[in-house]
Amino acid sequence: MREVFQQELREVQDRLVEIAGLVERSIELATRAFNESNVTLAEQVIVGDHAIDQAALALDELAIRILARQQPVARDLRIVVSALRVSASLERMGDLAEHIAQLARYRFPEKVVPASLRDTFYELGQLDVAIARKLTRLLKTEDLELAEEIRNDDDRIDELHVGVFDAVLGETWKGAAVDTVDATLASRYHERFADHAVGIAKNIQYLATGDFSKVEA
Amino acid sequence: MREVFQQELREVQDRLVEIAGLVERSIELATRAFNESNVTLAEQVIVGDHAIDQAALALDELAIRILARQQPVARDLRIVVSALRVSASLERMGDLAEHIAQLARYRFPEKVVPASLRDTFYELGQLDVAIARKLTRLLKTEDLELAEEIRNDDDRIDELHVGVFDAVLGETWKGAAVDTVDATLASRYHERFADHAVGIAKNIQYLATGDFSKVEA
Repeated sequence: MREVFQQELREVQDRLVEIAGLVERSIELATRAFNESNVTLAEQVIVGDHAIDQAALALDELAIRILARQQPVARDLRIVVSALRVSASLERMGDLAEHIAQLARYRFPEKVVPASLRDTFYELGQLDVAIARKLTRLLKTEDLELAEEIRNDDDRIDELHVGVFDAVLGETWKGAAVDTVDATLASRYHERFADHAVGIAKNIQYLATGDFSKVEA
Repeated sequence: MREVFQQELREVQDRLVEIAGLVERSIELATRAFNESNVTLAEQVIVGDHAIDQAALALDELAIRILARQQPVARDLRIVVSALRVSASLERMGDLAEHIAQLARYRFPEKVVPASLRDTFYELGQLDVAIARKLTRLLKTEDLELAEEIRNDDDRIDELHVGVFDAVLGETWKGAAVDTVDATLASRYHERFADHAVGIAKNIQYLATGDFSKVEA
């Protein structure tokens, strides 16, 4: 029984890594679509989000089956409950990548943000992609240094996010209302994407250390 | 054992109703703070969000203890897993109410949105409050008609949300960049608040009917 359980836990972990890989691919394409106004890539992301939703749903069903059949307790139980939470966050990260792609598609053939903010959004995109990559590796290896790196990347994203508002609300802002709307939404999507990754990283730190205080920080 | 379990399930339900009540109070105050530029109410919401977070965390711990001790299967198991999901959504709705209150506080003593959009945001606020009330009752009574009503209210919110973008991007929009940012964020927060309520309503419909297709709709 114990061996079957360990095997099922590995299956859960493998599937989480797989979903994180899909999210990683999605944010890569979405940020490229966004920065390069590439509508083909944007549509790929939008269509592809369905696969992430389905994979998350299938994982949830697996986790519930494991709870029913294996009746885990203590740390094992927390691993399975965590998997449900991680899956929900990954699913949401996929949605946010899709939103970024949708902005690119709406404005096509125009670019989404004016020239003055393009460097900022390029960096935001790069950071989201880096975070997604680290998250996949974190889920695979449970190397907690990656969790710390994700938090640091997120701090930089928060700085950039504040910078976008400073730019838009500053006296030199020449953007039209559509630029203001796009910058506001796009910045928020990039920031929320990273927030979810930080939430997942905290979950994994907690499981590894048993220190619940990190989850709430 | 069975009786203890039923009692614990009632405890879970009572706590969800209690958290939903806190969220209801929070969105009532937040939308009033927002529409009336009332910074005292706004601060009440911001301070009060901590209680929602703590209550959600405590409920999650209770649900995990029930999983460990009672080892539920089949529908009972799904009820407990659902409670974890509902708690996460309620916690997030609290955050969104807080975001709405924060907008009111940032702009104080100015109003958050220009006069031309005030009616729209008043209606958005009223709908979010109505949805929160129905959600508390739905969690208490499991009256599925309330779930349908929540979906209908959400459809109207989506219309209003699109209307905000039409207004902001229209030719007659005279707002400054700060108005555009506020309208964009505020509309998004109101809309996401309702989305989470719809997600919870679907969860409860699913539990009551066993029809999983509604959860994905």
